[in-house]
Amino acid sequence: MSNQQTELIVKMNLISWQMQNKSFAELIDKLTDEQLLKETAPGRNTGIYLLGHITAVSGDMFKILGLGENMFTEYVEIFIKSPDKSGKIFPPVTDLKVAYHEVTNELNSQFSKLSSEDWFSKHTAVSDEAFAKEPHRNKLNVLINRTTHISYHVGQMVYLEI
Amino acid sequence: MSNQQTELIVKMNLISWQMQNKSFAELIDKLTDEQLLKETAPGRNTGIYLLGHITAVSGDMFKILGLGENMFTEYVEIFIKSPDKSGKIFPPVTDLKVAYHEVTNELNSQFSKLSSEDWFSKHTAVSDEAFAKEPHRNKLNVLINRTTHISYHVGQMVYLEI
Repeated sequence: MSNQQTELIVKMNLISWQMQNKSFAELIDKLTDEQLLKETAPGRNTGIYLLGHITAVSGDMFKILGLGENMFTEYVEIFIKSPDKSGKIFPPVTDLKVAYHEVTNELNSQFSKLSSEDWFSKHTAVSDEAFAKEPHRNKLNVLINRTTHISYHVGQMVYLEI
Repeated sequence: MSNQQTELIVKMNLISWQMQNKSFAELIDKLTDEQLLKETAPGRNTGIYLLGHITAVSGDMFKILGLGENMFTEYVEIFIKSPDKSGKIFPPVTDLKVAYHEVTNELNSQFSKLSSEDWFSKHTAVSDEAFAKEPHRNKLNVLINRTTHISYHVGQMVYLEI
């Protein structure tokens, strides 16, 4: 198995991440503010909450991947630590859309500079000791998990389409 | 980059596949037949259709990965080629649950025998010529795509839970 193949597999996982983000971006750009304010199903999360949730989770990736600070730390409290309809005031949909694109573009820009070696290095939420025993707790694993997470919520947000 | 790391990354993608299937399996085992017969949201796909759909898509992986024949070819017409509420008669929920578990167990059993090299080889839906130009069209890429696909529908099926 060559280095070339390792690079290929990292690229495949990056493409999968980009594809899920593309689906998400196309969806939020197509949906009106009014549609995004609605529940994805009766009694379930609203579109605006899920938009904020994905933005917050992606924003948190800078820190966990050691790429810098979360650009929108205030979203963590509103969209990760609190459930929808918690009484927390949401930013306007327009701001959240802009924030999502900013975070995603900046992540992709940083990802393009990472080598395969970087992706195999440990993420910041794991100790050196734990990483020695569990080498799969690397940066690429964070990317893989976040990719399926986006897909899960895209499946729900398509229900906002008429 | 060592062979060991290539094996690790293949394993990480396999774990992601298994995790999504675990979520799906836990969900269908928890939901009653009555719940699975309902729509995941008003006017949207029913649980039974999505259960059949995932079973059919996974069943089709044997062929595309060169692992043998689809165990439930008849599901392709009902759950992939036809949308929900097409008028096609669905098998009973109980049969579909059994089929899903059979297909997934057999896939996992076959996956455990594949080497990293096998995962990098071309899938059966791509020609030798195309594969030479696009080496990412390998078996592992099929696994990655099917993993996010399951996650997408799990996101919808959780709406059947009370």
